[in-house]
Amino acid sequence: MPLLDALALNLERRPDAPLYRQIYDGLAAGIIGGSIKPGERLPSTRDLAQALGVSRNTIMLAFEQLTAEGYLEGLSGSGTYVSREPPAERVAREAPRINPAIRAAGSLERPFDIGGGLAHVPATLRYMRRPVPFRSNFPALDAFPVQLWAKLAADLYRRLDADIANHLMGEGDPQGYGPLREAIAEHVALGRGIACTAANVIIFAGAQQAVDLACRLLLMPGDEVVCEDPGYDGVYASVIATGGVPVPVPVDADGLDVSAAERKAPGARMAYVSPSKQFPLGMALSLERRHQLVDWASRSNGWILEDDYDSEFRYSGRPLPSLYGIDRGTRVIYLGTFSKTLFPALRLGFAIVPTALIEAFVSARTVVGRYSPILEQVLVARFMKEGHFASHVRKMRKLYAQRQAHLLHVVERRLGDWLMATPTDTGMEVVARLAPGLGGRAVSKAAAEHGLEVMPISSLARETDVDDRVTLGFSAFTPEQIDEGVERLRTVLVGMG
Amino acid sequence: MPLLDALALNLERRPDAPLYRQIYDGLAAGIIGGSIKPGERLPSTRDLAQALGVSRNTIMLAFEQLTAEGYLEGLSGSGTYVSREPPAERVAREAPRINPAIRAAGSLERPFDIGGGLAHVPATLRYMRRPVPFRSNFPALDAFPVQLWAKLAADLYRRLDADIANHLMGEGDPQGYGPLREAIAEHVALGRGIACTAANVIIFAGAQQAVDLACRLLLMPGDEVVCEDPGYDGVYASVIATGGVPVPVPVDADGLDVSAAERKAPGARMAYVSPSKQFPLGMALSLERRHQLVDWASRSNGWILEDDYDSEFRYSGRPLPSLYGIDRGTRVIYLGTFSKTLFPALRLGFAIVPTALIEAFVSARTVVGRYSPILEQVLVARFMKEGHFASHVRKMRKLYAQRQAHLLHVVERRLGDWLMATPTDTGMEVVARLAPGLGGRAVSKAAAEHGLEVMPISSLARETDVDDRVTLGFSAFTPEQIDEGVERLRTVLVGMG
Repeated sequence: MPLLDALALNLERRPDAPLYRQIYDGLAAGIIGGSIKPGERLPSTRDLAQALGVSRNTIMLAFEQLTAEGYLEGLSGSGTYVSREPPAERVAREAPRINPAIRAAGSLERPFDIGGGLAHVPATLRYMRRPVPFRSNFPALDAFPVQLWAKLAADLYRRLDADIANHLMGEGDPQGYGPLREAIAEHVALGRGIACTAANVIIFAGAQQAVDLACRLLLMPGDEVVCEDPGYDGVYASVIATGGVPVPVPVDADGLDVSAAERKAPGARMAYVSPSKQFPLGMALSLERRHQLVDWASRSNGWILEDDYDSEFRYSGRPLPSLYGIDRGTRVIYLGTFSKTLFPALRLGFAIVPTALIEAFVSARTVVGRYSPILEQVLVARFMKEGHFASHVRKMRKLYAQRQAHLLHVVERRLGDWLMATPTDTGMEVVARLAPGLGGRAVSKAAAEHGLEVMPISSLARETDVDDRVTLGFSAFTPEQIDEGVERLRTVLVGMG
Repeated sequence: MPLLDALALNLERRPDAPLYRQIYDGLAAGIIGGSIKPGERLPSTRDLAQALGVSRNTIMLAFEQLTAEGYLEGLSGSGTYVSREPPAERVAREAPRINPAIRAAGSLERPFDIGGGLAHVPATLRYMRRPVPFRSNFPALDAFPVQLWAKLAADLYRRLDADIANHLMGEGDPQGYGPLREAIAEHVALGRGIACTAANVIIFAGAQQAVDLACRLLLMPGDEVVCEDPGYDGVYASVIATGGVPVPVPVDADGLDVSAAERKAPGARMAYVSPSKQFPLGMALSLERRHQLVDWASRSNGWILEDDYDSEFRYSGRPLPSLYGIDRGTRVIYLGTFSKTLFPALRLGFAIVPTALIEAFVSARTVVGRYSPILEQVLVARFMKEGHFASHVRKMRKLYAQRQAHLLHVVERRLGDWLMATPTDTGMEVVARLAPGLGGRAVSKAAAEHGLEVMPISSLARETDVDDRVTLGFSAFTPEQIDEGVERLRTVLVGMG
């Protein structure tokens, strides 16, 4: 097999580049050069891994990148083939040379995107459409207290005389506006049992920016990172973009399988978890697993990214202690966001970091974009300090509980032949299991053609087979919108036979 | 010299790490391990470079990082010594392992910072204090139309019914709010002769975020980047943070010395310039140099980062065509900011990128922090579309011209014995040359003790000797504040003998 020989040769020659990139480069060069022909079927990832003496994960990363860039097609199922039409921009002589790691990170496609004008930007995290049923992970903007928000903003502007303007419109603190950091420290102390001060809080433009900065700061090229599978694609993207290697680890009923992680990535430097509500499967990380994970970090001097999104919307049961609290602030970086509790376009999130990391995080924060806009931070601080935040979250919790109950009721009555939705203790969407014979990707595609958004769990999976499940978001939709969406989804499912 | 032997050994062993990091690691290990003693004087950068067969620049990068982290002291002047007290956080067994590149990038100190509570965050880009005379690069917030801004905000909130809220408070376009991108495309077409559409415009949280993303996207580890010397420290930080090597190149009366750049870094992948007003020396890049630089990029397939800050505030003469315009949008990334034309805490800037780069930039933009807050983008778009932006810039241009004239007049009358300020055609500060015997760093330090900010050009210099000059900002201060500041500065200078 000349393909394998060429790759093996390359692998010996370049000790400086990550393995997956060498395989990527070798295959891309072969395809551009014509030694690997359009339409040719590639060996399986398993065979290739064995032949080259590398892990299957390495091969899959290379294949993913080549697929994202259009060199290969058909990643799973019947095998992987060289595209019949190689991507034009690589063949062109004047092609821009883009850093392959960050290119790969930015090009992971989300197959459940509704098509259209977005086609030229296949970004993982791109969502600019209005929410349609059953968008997951989206707050009820129809219930946001816009007029209260506007009044606070008007008050703030009224007080902006020259002196305050110099203070609030001039250069801000890269760590974040002090009173907002104080309010957040109080919020997590009360809600999540985290003992910290405002000095441990750093404001970011959403949790993703904090994930990305943590990866850049704490990883060296080649470092392995334990990621949930299925799991949040933003962390996979940032790990790849910073030269690290994401290691997908399965989740079970207790959340991330920590023992599997220790077996699969014994030298991992970092682990990412969404412990309050695993994204996208929805279970909580059990108390035992939490201790196991903190023990791992402590033993191995590893880092934990604790993405505690949706912990605010708990409908029943008691919340489990946060990893940051269990660990007492040494190896855990706790991440929170206002995208769900307030609104996404605000672009505010925060990290709570161990004291030993504060200076490094804040210094690096200035390099990647100085700081977050200040006037919005002042507004959010006031919203929190005056009690509006706690009251809004309480109201939304009640509203979302009603919307969930309504969705579950209608889905059971009208869609029971095709899917079964499981109630969730927390958060903004439920997981629904499809009847045998139905696949999540196929349902999502058909639903998109009818203007609906149904997220197949498999779109966030790497090595696990979860195409039997989808998520249905309820938080952003009124009972009438839910009824109407369910009827449309029924039509879709009837149409699929 | 056992020190050199140990380093040379290390250099042969590790072909995978950048040279400056190997030198950094070798020296840090020696200091921690005790083989290099506290107080020991190091060989000069020139000798060390010769002995190890590396460039002096490489040695200086390593020294800079070691100095920033407290291992070494006294970078210039009488030589470099091992600190008598090694940094506690490195010696501690539990020290966090921070990526050395991004740590170095985030720790470049600005010696003209006014001390105090900021000591624990020695970040380059950190500025959270109110502007005091003679802060450079700072707009006149006392003249910002706060009430008009507040009225536009109130109008916007009033129109936020559920439908518009879903549109504007939900997920936004990572490339930026469409109407704002349109307004920017019109603005640069009129003002800077740039033929582009809204599709080429990408919104960032300020120009620094765009610089950082361009480095991550377009550089591979080890790539050289031509940087102005003295020059903007944010680009040095981002180049180092992404594993590239900044190459300081001197500027003369015509701006960046492009021929020197071609000699010094013949294989450079990128060049950063501030062509409208070189930061911090203030001259424009000449037309000939502009063509020379664009030719270089075209011949070598290199990239140009054109940081066109302050091009809006031109008091006399005609603006030179932008590099983006000369190049017709193939190798130039044009950067603009609203921090100067509106206000810093807004955190909005933009890049105009060649069509071939749009997709890669937007995809990567989502990974590093999704997108900028939307409601502020809506406000700025409306501010521009209704003509307020052009009118505000016009008013500020007139105001800043008056403030500059006043400063020059008072400085000549009251400070003529110590310094001579040169009028500037454009921007927000003037350069002043100190009388023989006075040094910029010393003046800055003495001024800071009297509550004044005088920026020594040498704080932004790498290899050039420019401690005979400082900048004095005029834009942010009323005539009364300027008078008062000049009197205080006179006291400082009298006190220095």
